[in-house]
Amino acid sequence: MVKNVAKTIFEAVGADALVTTQDDLRFYLTGFKSSFGVVVTDKKGTSFYTDSRYSEAAAKALVASGIKVAEYPRGVKLCDFLKGYSSLGMPFNAITAEGYGQLTAAGFKLVDSAAAFRSAMAVKSQSEIDNITLACKATDKAFCDLLNQIKEGMTENEVAALLEYLMRKHGASGTSFETICAFGANGSVPHHETGATKLKFGDAVLIDFGCKINGYCSDCTRTFLFGDDGKHGEFKELYEKVLTAHMLVKQEFRSGMTGKQGDAIARDYLAKYDLAKYFTHTLGHSLGINIHESPNLSPADETVFSDGMVFSDEPGVYLAGKLGIRIEDTVTLSGGKVVSLTDSDKKLIIL
Amino acid sequence: MVKNVAKTIFEAVGADALVTTQDDLRFYLTGFKSSFGVVVTDKKGTSFYTDSRYSEAAAKALVASGIKVAEYPRGVKLCDFLKGYSSLGMPFNAITAEGYGQLTAAGFKLVDSAAAFRSAMAVKSQSEIDNITLACKATDKAFCDLLNQIKEGMTENEVAALLEYLMRKHGASGTSFETICAFGANGSVPHHETGATKLKFGDAVLIDFGCKINGYCSDCTRTFLFGDDGKHGEFKELYEKVLTAHMLVKQEFRSGMTGKQGDAIARDYLAKYDLAKYFTHTLGHSLGINIHESPNLSPADETVFSDGMVFSDEPGVYLAGKLGIRIEDTVTLSGGKVVSLTDSDKKLIIL
Repeated sequence: MVKNVAKTIFEAVGADALVTTQDDLRFYLTGFKSSFGVVVTDKKGTSFYTDSRYSEAAAKALVASGIKVAEYPRGVKLCDFLKGYSSLGMPFNAITAEGYGQLTAAGFKLVDSAAAFRSAMAVKSQSEIDNITLACKATDKAFCDLLNQIKEGMTENEVAALLEYLMRKHGASGTSFETICAFGANGSVPHHETGATKLKFGDAVLIDFGCKINGYCSDCTRTFLFGDDGKHGEFKELYEKVLTAHMLVKQEFRSGMTGKQGDAIARDYLAKYDLAKYFTHTLGHSLGINIHESPNLSPADETVFSDGMVFSDEPGVYLAGKLGIRIEDTVTLSGGKVVSLTDSDKKLIIL
Repeated sequence: MVKNVAKTIFEAVGADALVTTQDDLRFYLTGFKSSFGVVVTDKKGTSFYTDSRYSEAAAKALVASGIKVAEYPRGVKLCDFLKGYSSLGMPFNAITAEGYGQLTAAGFKLVDSAAAFRSAMAVKSQSEIDNITLACKATDKAFCDLLNQIKEGMTENEVAALLEYLMRKHGASGTSFETICAFGANGSVPHHETGATKLKFGDAVLIDFGCKINGYCSDCTRTFLFGDDGKHGEFKELYEKVLTAHMLVKQEFRSGMTGKQGDAIARDYLAKYDLAKYFTHTLGHSLGINIHESPNLSPADETVFSDGMVFSDEPGVYLAGKLGIRIEDTVTLSGGKVVSLTDSDKKLIIL
């Protein structure tokens, strides 16, 4: 839970009440995981209304937070529950057209809270960074364990399953997104669907994976060789280029630069070797409670980055039908500079 | 993919075009998994617009479907892309207020497609039932394996991780929801958050779990005893009552009955023993591409059930701070009667 954040967002939005019904945003405001509830913030304070499945545990968890916990009256519609307010702050990028229609039909004036949430969530508190760091450490440990356990003949699905199990063993509550595991030429599809392809000697292996701890995500990609069959000259050359692009971002990106400038560090370097055309996605995205948050490191994002933001640094090159290389760490900005949160070895691994 | 379903929904909605941007609904219309795209159906047919990550694979997968695949023009806004239509069918329970606002501001008349999707998706095609059955079989096999591998001292998290790994080994691409694993009195919280509690001799174990295969979900709950410490008289008595309620639904629920009538079969039986007050949730929910679909087996749902619907049968009783018992199978209606799709042994297991 981020202290006083509900009040900050309420004040930024400027409606009579900030009304938050989305699981992720409710968790952001309260630090309490639930699949049902409404957080209402007005000038008197913040209340979390949930059902009997959660109310007891929530009251216990939030006792020191200043957030009141009460049961949401069963069967009562939100528009009736909120009677007395005339304007409501709600995130237009998350509430449905149906919900919007019902509330406006009931006479409420709706004010968009999305931008206020987006800018608050972009800069993580220390406790949020601590949780992301926990998830990143579990991710690193699981990958190291995997390198000792991966075997010829395993399918992409089996390797993904094993890696997910290992992250769980290191404390994760689950994955932060569907694990991508690609053998050989499958790696050239950035969003390859993990399947039944079997691992064989000499395969390149690309794995994009992450987990959640205490509700916060990690994100990491490693590409390595499962044995060297002597046919990987081009792969090794490109690997060094992608790794240099990845490391350049860590060295040169600074608080105060824009997402566009960050993306350009990697893209311009790859362009020197005529490889920018194979770097078919953006450099990175913010992450936290959700795996994809704002801002992005992309040619289109002019947002100025600052200390406390957490994002991915993930350049890649993809030669269709041939090979794909992506090297990704979750990083943050601290003291103006990039600090890596996932950080397992990125020198080319040949098993 | 369900044949011709886009045309059926388009005709039911009655707009110039049915426009579908949601991952789950796009998958329903095309049978192709993607994280970006728009499916547009008009009187001339159905087209799937996606980006370069997916277009090649989608074109290959949909060659026999009659659905055209093309690249969505990069950087073009949806309201510009759809120029030429005057009314658009979109699901108001899934599009955001922001999207709704942008499209109406651009002059489109929006028509709600949610009800048409809901009623089409409620009745599964044979190929959908085949995929759900695959997921259910993997679920059953994993549970049987787990019973041989679960050991004293494992945490709830470790047991959940192991079970998820076993489902993966049996072909699952991942879980269909966050696994609930509760030891001892933790089982009395229907949505217990799986944690660090260690398994000890004599514990009751409640596990609610499911997986996905080919994009379709399974859902199953088992409650069993990890050894009998001689203190489980009440537990055993209640287990028999919950199991009878579960089996009565399978015997008595029929195509043509309502969700409310289904719920009442279990609730009325438990009421005879004054246990209905401990059955604090509804009997079941539909599932398919999503783990929670419509209709429900609940006191509030008057929907008439029919052959081809797939739903959970999950009565439970919860004595706060003491014990919880839930027995759940994924089932379908076929030839008017209930057929169980998950079906591992439900006689009380004492390990």
